[in-house]
Amino acid sequence: MKLDYNNMMSEKLGSQGIAQSELDALKPRIETAVAAMAQKHADGGMDWRNLPFEQADVVKDIVAYVDEMKSDIEAFVVLGIGGSALGPLAVQQALNHPYYNELPREKVGGYPKLYVVDNVDPERLVYLFDILDLKKTLFNVISKSGSTSETMSQFMIIEEMLKKQLGDDYKKHIVCTTDKSTGNLIAIANKAGYKTFIIPSGVGGRFSELSPVGLLPAAFCGIDIAGLLEGAAEMDNLCRNGKDYTKNPAYMYAILHYIAMKRGKNISVMMPYADSLKFISDWYAQLWAESLGKKYDINGKIVNVGQTPVKALGATDQHSQVQLYTEGPFDKIIVLMGVDEYKETITIPKVYTDMPSLGFLGGVTHNKLIQTEQVATEYALTVAGKMNMTLTLPKVTPQTLGYLLHFFEIATAFAGELLEINAFDQPGVEEGKNATYALFGRPGYEDKKKELDEAPKKDQKYII
Amino acid sequence: MKLDYNNMMSEKLGSQGIAQSELDALKPRIETAVAAMAQKHADGGMDWRNLPFEQADVVKDIVAYVDEMKSDIEAFVVLGIGGSALGPLAVQQALNHPYYNELPREKVGGYPKLYVVDNVDPERLVYLFDILDLKKTLFNVISKSGSTSETMSQFMIIEEMLKKQLGDDYKKHIVCTTDKSTGNLIAIANKAGYKTFIIPSGVGGRFSELSPVGLLPAAFCGIDIAGLLEGAAEMDNLCRNGKDYTKNPAYMYAILHYIAMKRGKNISVMMPYADSLKFISDWYAQLWAESLGKKYDINGKIVNVGQTPVKALGATDQHSQVQLYTEGPFDKIIVLMGVDEYKETITIPKVYTDMPSLGFLGGVTHNKLIQTEQVATEYALTVAGKMNMTLTLPKVTPQTLGYLLHFFEIATAFAGELLEINAFDQPGVEEGKNATYALFGRPGYEDKKKELDEAPKKDQKYII
Repeated sequence: MKLDYNNMMSEKLGSQGIAQSELDALKPRIETAVAAMAQKHADGGMDWRNLPFEQADVVKDIVAYVDEMKSDIEAFVVLGIGGSALGPLAVQQALNHPYYNELPREKVGGYPKLYVVDNVDPERLVYLFDILDLKKTLFNVISKSGSTSETMSQFMIIEEMLKKQLGDDYKKHIVCTTDKSTGNLIAIANKAGYKTFIIPSGVGGRFSELSPVGLLPAAFCGIDIAGLLEGAAEMDNLCRNGKDYTKNPAYMYAILHYIAMKRGKNISVMMPYADSLKFISDWYAQLWAESLGKKYDINGKIVNVGQTPVKALGATDQHSQVQLYTEGPFDKIIVLMGVDEYKETITIPKVYTDMPSLGFLGGVTHNKLIQTEQVATEYALTVAGKMNMTLTLPKVTPQTLGYLLHFFEIATAFAGELLEINAFDQPGVEEGKNATYALFGRPGYEDKKKELDEAPKKDQKYII
Repeated sequence: MKLDYNNMMSEKLGSQGIAQSELDALKPRIETAVAAMAQKHADGGMDWRNLPFEQADVVKDIVAYVDEMKSDIEAFVVLGIGGSALGPLAVQQALNHPYYNELPREKVGGYPKLYVVDNVDPERLVYLFDILDLKKTLFNVISKSGSTSETMSQFMIIEEMLKKQLGDDYKKHIVCTTDKSTGNLIAIANKAGYKTFIIPSGVGGRFSELSPVGLLPAAFCGIDIAGLLEGAAEMDNLCRNGKDYTKNPAYMYAILHYIAMKRGKNISVMMPYADSLKFISDWYAQLWAESLGKKYDINGKIVNVGQTPVKALGATDQHSQVQLYTEGPFDKIIVLMGVDEYKETITIPKVYTDMPSLGFLGGVTHNKLIQTEQVATEYALTVAGKMNMTLTLPKVTPQTLGYLLHFFEIATAFAGELLEINAFDQPGVEEGKNATYALFGRPGYEDKKKELDEAPKKDQKYII
């Protein structure tokens, strides 16, 4: 993978760019962050970094379980939300056929279809049952705490349905991914005797894709999960301490974003030029947003930091977003993500040669067209003075994907160190959760209920 | 539909909110914009506003064509990009079964499956052919100018394939939606004798969803297109001139966003709490971004305005974005979009009553859960001082959807008037297009090629 940040620099962007001297001046700050990161890693505060190295047995277990189950099931359904849903989706979309669920079984190696149910929309769940044969479906409940309302309520509904429809046989249709000892889900699973896979205790939701959270769904779609881990290990090794940070793509990615944030670029666009990587943007958006969007810094000072991630897809969104990116405010940094080699090639025939706006396309491959459009967009952004950088993967494979996911995770963690915030918590979601509990009259939330009841009423004149 | 903007106002947000006096002070500016909008409408500069009223015959043609074709085809494939792709997708996802393409034909009223191909990713197109039977596929090429490289190159590839594989019969498999007289596509269609539907000349891409661009794909999915137009007509009538703008939801939506922009809120989040409305956010994002992201105002002054739209989905993205929205910078306005009545109901069983974080869910419907989470998120955002407003649809139907789409179009146009920019052009995409042409050596682009060749080379030290 290659990170090209020429178009972040003043040589290309003039006063809108970063001068080398500015980067140099930041050296002490960066070195402090490098040391803090190493310390946190050593102190066991970043156990997700061990995932690529410590799961040989987990991989064996998963592969054996998939082999055992796969011929009996036609659909594998993930019940999860946040990282637990976005990770499995991103990996599946990146590596498998884009119309995977519509292909006959024999064309996808005998693996089941994949569905990810990550909302409590009543229509979505009811309609899902229209296409599932419960007798041939395996549900993967993913919740570390076992108290995620959305996931657990889906589980409660589905467990009851399975019990009613399948009798004693129902247990084979549920597999849980959760903490090894704490929380409701492991208690439920142990009591019922469900198959379980463990999320290591030091691994939080958005950094869990390379744990069984992501590995199990990927393996059920026939993806080489050892390859994913192999790629991630390679990235991790590249980012070990003691190395020059200017040669570390994850650190440089974070440093450049940090400088951009300090200059008021509060938006970070992720724009892959490959349909296969579209959902990587979704996964990245939750990682970047939830990790870096914080009210307090590590010293308890109110900072209200965070950059808002925006998902785009090239070349498609050249026809929806790029007008804004080139002509709009100087408020964002745009990451273009390219691929050297696509899995397929298709050539435009030499027709309509008499029509200038079509004729030039004759004989060109779509591969060349999309890559050229990426270069052209990069050029247009740069001419307009807009900060942009390019990540290029040689090809989308399990290895490069694992490399990429781990790259983003390390970059996010390091951005947290530069911002001096805790990238691993999410205190801001508590307020909404507590309000939900209070509105449902959950015992223990009486004070919050009172607070809600006493909040100023809405003024009808502001409702039209 | 209801627009509730209490949480934009100082009564709820304190100094982060808008005072009524601030709204009052803006009255002259608003009245100028109202007059400018009316003038533009009268001068024929907003022909898309006539679409709900002038298409009785178009609807008849479309319905007759669908009736004629539908039994012969299994798949309807849209070849389009930007609004031409996002509109059809948004409408289909809003109104049809979420697993529409996976249902057997008899369960979807005998209508064909819908595919939208909006990129030049070679994998996507090659893999699409794995699941299509060309003999039973109808391709809808949508391009007003007939020179959109992405769409037209797809068309060139597919037309050749059809000719080779189906012989003389191939013509029945292509239907064009384009301008009535100008451009390559109408010339090609007339010569070949393809069935065509017309995009009225005054209607631009992102305002074309209620023209045959959107109506034809919708009708092929069994959607009541007259109902869509009926709803849009109702909204249009509500927004007619001469009425009090404070009673006009589209105008108030634009005014509140305008004030937010002036206060530095450069991000606008669209967060529906319904899976069915998820793709409305995508469609809205292109409308808002491309219309309002402009370098120059109407007087030629450099302004670099535009608000960056962000797509989110409730409750799902409470687990990925809301942490940032509540705790991060005061840089955004969040639009929550709710639904009073979902098409289905599902109830969580009364189980695990001994576990406090699960027990309270027993007997609750997912309908109530998702709606309560929306209220809780609204509360959390407001407590955190973050500007937010709520749009509520009674139910998602063709009528309410037409109403909503037209609402966003009018709001966007009016925001353009307030910003004093041209909301209907997209000069910023030209630079990238021209660079693409130049890189392919298209005649007439020699100067651009020279400019590209002479651009400063990249510095290897910024590539890692």
